[in-house]
Amino acid sequence: MELGQAIWRDVNRINKQNPLIHNITNYVVMNNTANALLALGASPVMAHAIEEITEMIASADALVLNIGTLDNQWISSMYGALNAAEADNTPVIFDPVGAGATKLRTQTTIHLINKCYPNIICGNGSEIKAIAGAGNKTRGVDSLDSSGDAIEAAEIIAERYNTVVVISGEYDYVIDSDNKIKLKNGHEMMGVITGMGCTATAISAAFAGVNDSYFDAAVHGVSFLGIAGEIAAEYSAGPGSLQVNILDEIYNLNEKQIEEKVKFEKI
Amino acid sequence: MELGQAIWRDVNRINKQNPLIHNITNYVVMNNTANALLALGASPVMAHAIEEITEMIASADALVLNIGTLDNQWISSMYGALNAAEADNTPVIFDPVGAGATKLRTQTTIHLINKCYPNIICGNGSEIKAIAGAGNKTRGVDSLDSSGDAIEAAEIIAERYNTVVVISGEYDYVIDSDNKIKLKNGHEMMGVITGMGCTATAISAAFAGVNDSYFDAAVHGVSFLGIAGEIAAEYSAGPGSLQVNILDEIYNLNEKQIEEKVKFEKI
Amino acid sequence: MELGQAIWRDVNRINKQNPLIHNITNYVVMNNTANALLALGASPVMAHAIEEITEMIASADALVLNIGTLDNQWISSMYGALNAAEADNTPVIFDPVGAGATKLRTQTTIHLINKCYPNIICGNGSEIKAIAGAGNKTRGVDSLDSSGDAIEAAEIIAERYNTVVVISGEYDYVIDSDNKIKLKNGHEMMGVITGMGCTATAISAAFAGVNDSYFDAAVHGVSFLGIAGEIAAEYSAGPGSLQVNILDEIYNLNEKQIEEKVKFEKI
Repeated sequence: MELGQAIWRDVNRINKQNPLIHNITNYVVMNNTANALLALGASPVMAHAIEEITEMIASADALVLNIGTLDNQWISSMYGALNAAEADNTPVIFDPVGAGATKLRTQTTIHLINKCYPNIICGNGSEIKAIAGAGNKTRGVDSLDSSGDAIEAAEIIAERYNTVVVISGEYDYVIDSDNKIKLKNGHEMMGVITGMGCTATAISAAFAGVNDSYFDAAVHGVSFLGIAGEIAAEYSAGPGSLQVNILDEIYNLNEKQIEEKVKFEKI
Repeated sequence: MELGQAIWRDVNRINKQNPLIHNITNYVVMNNTANALLALGASPVMAHAIEEITEMIASADALVLNIGTLDNQWISSMYGALNAAEADNTPVIFDPVGAGATKLRTQTTIHLINKCYPNIICGNGSEIKAIAGAGNKTRGVDSLDSSGDAIEAAEIIAERYNTVVVISGEYDYVIDSDNKIKLKNGHEMMGVITGMGCTATAISAAFAGVNDSYFDAAVHGVSFLGIAGEIAAEYSAGPGSLQVNILDEIYNLNEKQIEEKVKFEKI
Repeated sequence: MELGQAIWRDVNRINKQNPLIHNITNYVVMNNTANALLALGASPVMAHAIEEITEMIASADALVLNIGTLDNQWISSMYGALNAAEADNTPVIFDPVGAGATKLRTQTTIHLINKCYPNIICGNGSEIKAIAGAGNKTRGVDSLDSSGDAIEAAEIIAERYNTVVVISGEYDYVIDSDNKIKLKNGHEMMGVITGMGCTATAISAAFAGVNDSYFDAAVHGVSFLGIAGEIAAEYSAGPGSLQVNILDEIYNLNEKQIEEKVKFEKI
């Protein structure tokens, strides 16, 4: 099956099954993440109280952990969520926002992913390199760095944690121990919207809720958002309207657009 | 007075009196809720610190409690807020987001509304049924379920807590022990925006800030938002632009539009 | 150098240097603040965990403290952040949202700014008056009050804390012990968007990240946002689209527009 067709098949599954995506994510992106998931046909839930985590995750089809506005209370919730997800075999998608920027973020990331290997880890180049131990300094949390080293770092992580790694940036990469793909959709103005990487993570979780191959789920999710952004950028005057129009495109994208636009290269 | 005229009278009151609406609400919708209240002519305040609750509520014309991203700290604030509101005779509008989905949410809802009967409770069908004790499982928090049972559940709640109940969904219902009305405004794409129900709750609070009949306030608030959404949907390409355009319509709606569009049925 | 030229020079510096702006701000505006900073060319980071504050601020070019949704945990983080900023000579821009409305807000403001004098304090008239000790009651947090008294209050604060004071309102004022300027850009519909003042604060921080004169940074930041809002208002149907279009204008404003539109009066 061609990639475009496979993405479209999963979009239809999402619309039919409305996978419930549990998000423990950062304050900055909560509204947009929820709206992106709804526009795609998934059901978002945002909940962090340790008292309800297990029960919430029992209904969830995937769990998103995003450490963008971390503190100790939320770290406890994330541990609780990982325990519950592990017990239920719920797919876990992890976004290490700002790993490398502070010890708290780097160490929390390492502890959490050692506790329970996530099925997909989505970060920018600096974050992925920080996890691999390259120890470089992340600049801000919307960094677009994804140079060569990041791919090597992703390979190390994929192997070490038996996981799928997404590197977001000008081009996006999806890497596991067997496969490597470069995804060429998207538009540079997407980097001027806060939390686009977080949206990619959440959308990949929705695809993981309907597709057992986490590699495929990540490829489909990231490509889908890239195509939505690319089309929306054609008629958006700036990043404000682009953020809005991407939601419209997530809602409206059709099979033909996806098949015509999808652009990738196996590497 | 016709319903459309009565809504418009209250809109004018809101614009003249700028009722101060105190919100203890969820992280996901805070920005949109504040913007919707401002667009309507009300003054929003978002504050949750227990140390300032009593003072804040002393100036407030209505209190919104919304349990969408609950945790223990916020539950304490909600209790404090209810105490203050009770002492001040401040109207309380309660949104039991996700009641039925977890014990924490169902029990918190029951404890809070037993502590101090809210003047209006706004939820979707699942939430209302959960409160009535029907014990069904809520799916996600943007569920649109509002089947027949929900009306029965609302009647039970209205009686038990001497309150006004709003059931949001494809059609909205407002029910108290004496009256029952089905509101037919709105557009299905509103269900693809996160927190539209939370916006309806906050807007109803603004109407409750200028109208002593809580039944009328709920009817006016829910109808008003439904009309705004209906008009905005006519020119919105998707849910992203709809979210934005609804704010514009809340700001711009005029008497003629309201009178022509308002659609309801006493049941 | 003309004001328009000086603003444009700083915009170019921001785009070249991408100053990292650390924000400890309120839940309501986080998304918009981050997007406004990105659209301007700055790098936003939102982080509040006391465990990482020192490290984060070591990389930051300016620190924004905004007390809009204050609680004790966040107050501790703000103290930690001030200590770190003081040690690093990082500019501090303070937004006393709701000072005057509750003791918690007024006292926290006074304690924080006594701990470490901010380089710029941005508030509306009520907040500035509350800090100066005029003791009047703030109404809501989006109040536009900035009458004559506020200027006197700003002069007192500027002197007492050796700082630059911004009064936001229909006209904006920037005041320090030597200079006073009235800024005449902006549009009344900006007052119908939540957190426009918070955006002005964050944008002024970005200018302070590239300009050592805090007075000039505040003037440039506030004028820049006023011009963006003024132009965006020309084609915005309401406050929903205005919020979006302002982000587009922040991204797109050019030298000619700034020079033609900038309007001020030394007082």
